[in-house]
Amino acid sequence: MISFPSKLLEEAVNEFAKLPGIGRRTAMRMVLHLLKEKEEKSTALGKAIISVRQNIRYCDICHNISETEICSLCNDNSRDNSLICVVEDIRDVMAIESTNQYKGVYHVLNGIISPMDGIGPNELNIESLVKRISDNYVKEIIMALSTTIEGDTTIFYIYKRLKDFNISFSTITKGVAIGDELEYTDEITLGRSIVNRIPYDYSILKI
Amino acid sequence: MISFPSKLLEEAVNEFAKLPGIGRRTAMRMVLHLLKEKEEKSTALGKAIISVRQNIRYCDICHNISETEICSLCNDNSRDNSLICVVEDIRDVMAIESTNQYKGVYHVLNGIISPMDGIGPNELNIESLVKRISDNYVKEIIMALSTTIEGDTTIFYIYKRLKDFNISFSTITKGVAIGDELEYTDEITLGRSIVNRIPYDYSILKI
Repeated sequence: MISFPSKLLEEAVNEFAKLPGIGRRTAMRMVLHLLKEKEEKSTALGKAIISVRQNIRYCDICHNISETEICSLCNDNSRDNSLICVVEDIRDVMAIESTNQYKGVYHVLNGIISPMDGIGPNELNIESLVKRISDNYVKEIIMALSTTIEGDTTIFYIYKRLKDFNISFSTITKGVAIGDELEYTDEITLGRSIVNRIPYDYSILKI
Repeated sequence: MISFPSKLLEEAVNEFAKLPGIGRRTAMRMVLHLLKEKEEKSTALGKAIISVRQNIRYCDICHNISETEICSLCNDNSRDNSLICVVEDIRDVMAIESTNQYKGVYHVLNGIISPMDGIGPNELNIESLVKRISDNYVKEIIMALSTTIEGDTTIFYIYKRLKDFNISFSTITKGVAIGDELEYTDEITLGRSIVNRIPYDYSILKI
């Protein structure tokens, strides 16, 4: 048992230690770091944490992070609304946006199908994707998920849900190494894999 | 360049990334984690960070972290004020307190002499230790610093400053492996090394 010299210190350490990947020693180091720095630094961090959670919402259309009902990407008239890139989470939107290679819109699933983690299709933003396609003119769906078994399963599930619509169904390709997380792919590889996308072919799954 | 979908998100990530050992990817993961959790969690973390920096001060006597002018350890009448344990930082106070083996008081140096990091004796709470000893009855000083070259240098410097006072000067011993950080020592070893402390002998430095 560690004896804290102050309740406030203990509280701050406990709150930090709730963050993913942060143990109690790391939390303690962070708090002591803040205590050594100017008061404005702690205030800025504290306020940013409270404000981001209070004021950020998810786009009603694509579920990307947004400060308004409709995000800046969905609201951008210069983008092609008939081209939807389906991604796992908003980090992937940010990664693809930073390639400057894609001018369509997005659909953020907020996860991928992973029975081991108890995540099934109902936990993901799949129904809203189906509704989006039935209500609007959509030419093509690009599946840009991580090249893992969970990613493949999710792509296959969504393909089955969408195959009766008159749309092209493609996946990113070339360069994303099998087993790699999309988030860590370099910009050039990721950019090329979007430009060179190919029609989805589920026969490679050998089902 | 990463494109953030929201200024608030970017701000929160930037503030997190200023913490020691936190890169931008980790900062992003933390913020996304908070966004997925209930709003109360972010509010609690944010408030704890602001409050700990605003309300915590250092004890006027021993420089331990405190919520009052004099910390609870210095204020505790059951503790022996004539026995002062000198430590590098407050994590060491917490480590020694958790052994339940020590009933004296502390003096927190807030660092150790490390010319490589530009930390000399004037950056540390050494003058206040000298004043504390000349103004009060002190029987013994226990040096409980990390067993590194910097620790040895600091002990030797303080010994020279205090050797004309009529006090015992001891160092912790037995069990703390040479080169180890005090903070990571197990409680039993650390407790025994305080109980079995020996008089300081600078001849081992072969100066």
